[in-house]
Amino acid sequence: MPDVSVVIAAGGKGRRMGGGTPKQFLLLGGVPILARTIAAFHPLREIREIVLVVPAGCIPRARALVRRAGFTKVADVVEGGKNRQASVFNGLERCSSRTGVVLVHDAVRPLVGRRTIMSVIRAAGRYGAAVAGLPVKETIKTESGGRRGFYSRTLRREELWAVQTPQGFLFPLLREAHRRARSSGFLGTDDATLVERMGTPVRIVRGTEMNIKITTPYDRKLAEFLLGMPGRG
Amino acid sequence: MPDVSVVIAAGGKGRRMGGGTPKQFLLLGGVPILARTIAAFHPLREIREIVLVVPAGCIPRARALVRRAGFTKVADVVEGGKNRQASVFNGLERCSSRTGVVLVHDAVRPLVGRRTIMSVIRAAGRYGAAVAGLPVKETIKTESGGRRGFYSRTLRREELWAVQTPQGFLFPLLREAHRRARSSGFLGTDDATLVERMGTPVRIVRGTEMNIKITTPYDRKLAEFLLGMPGRG
Repeated sequence: MPDVSVVIAAGGKGRRMGGGTPKQFLLLGGVPILARTIAAFHPLREIREIVLVVPAGCIPRARALVRRAGFTKVADVVEGGKNRQASVFNGLERCSSRTGVVLVHDAVRPLVGRRTIMSVIRAAGRYGAAVAGLPVKETIKTESGGRRGFYSRTLRREELWAVQTPQGFLFPLLREAHRRARSSGFLGTDDATLVERMGTPVRIVRGTEMNIKITTPYDRKLAEFLLGMPGRG
Repeated sequence: MPDVSVVIAAGGKGRRMGGGTPKQFLLLGGVPILARTIAAFHPLREIREIVLVVPAGCIPRARALVRRAGFTKVADVVEGGKNRQASVFNGLERCSSRTGVVLVHDAVRPLVGRRTIMSVIRAAGRYGAAVAGLPVKETIKTESGGRRGFYSRTLRREELWAVQTPQGFLFPLLREAHRRARSSGFLGTDDATLVERMGTPVRIVRGTEMNIKITTPYDRKLAEFLLGMPGRG
């Protein structure tokens, strides 16, 4: 197994959630979301270091959380950029040069399971790039080519995947993809998009329905409920 | 307002749920899912009749449920076909010829809200075809054109909608769309797809996150949780 580093990106201020506390510090079952997310990765032997990326004003708070929980693998807490991609870039710049595979994970996906993490690590090592995802259950329509508010066509559901994090990559590949995107001014919705632009096919690994991204008060209530469920995967 | 008929399609046997009871008869907060679904539509003044479509063996059970709950607007309980589309077809054939707008709804979406139903009725009357849907939050990748298990491209999320039911249509339009699909052997994942094939643009109406389709034990537990939440929409 290669050395694995994890970049946990909590760059957003989470304004959709309302209130003054950035969403990654809100409590879930009495524990800050960010602490739960770190705890999902921390015990895995393959993982050598974790780099946290948080908004500038939250660095002391994040450091205190790490110290209190005894997360000894957290190598550093660095400042986020003006968008998610810039935040991940900052985290990558801080990773050890010995990193073989890097995982990128959303700070607000605390319910990720060990099996999903291990599958992404293995597939990233083997194929260069891998993401957790789920087959799309809903019928997806696109407005593309039509009027706004009306859709023009139904996509072939059996070919569609809803992509989550973690996303894993050979470290030099992702670093290069980020540098190229940055110099050309390209913004992607996730890290895999940047690698994809370089022509690298990305392996899809099956995640779980529980690995939700907490962005709204509804999501947070749902996560409280899911905490009590078995089968995190 | 035109006369509105509702076809509630419960044709599936729900094998994914396990156990012997078809999923639409499973209890949710002590009440059968199908009864909750009917109850979401029944009180609306605009709705004149409801046609239930269930597997052949379930007809007596569905009739008993309707009788016990006093759902006087249920005009008939008819037998489902060999797939969802064939079941809806059977329901449409039973609708009153006076129907102006017909809604099609999944029997296993009991948490649909009154506001969503009314919006679909209005938009269907105005534009001919309308579906409830939600903007897609996740990054969606497609395997199209690539190898199975690898994806080749990321779709433009801002153009994507995850489509739910109810779906509403001018009655003659949907009946014609079903007849054409049937005679040409075309199978769509939903009713709007059939109308879309005739070149009719379909209006999208914003639904709610609570309007989930209950197809797995996980969904059922989630629905039990959502029952206690406000803001059904």
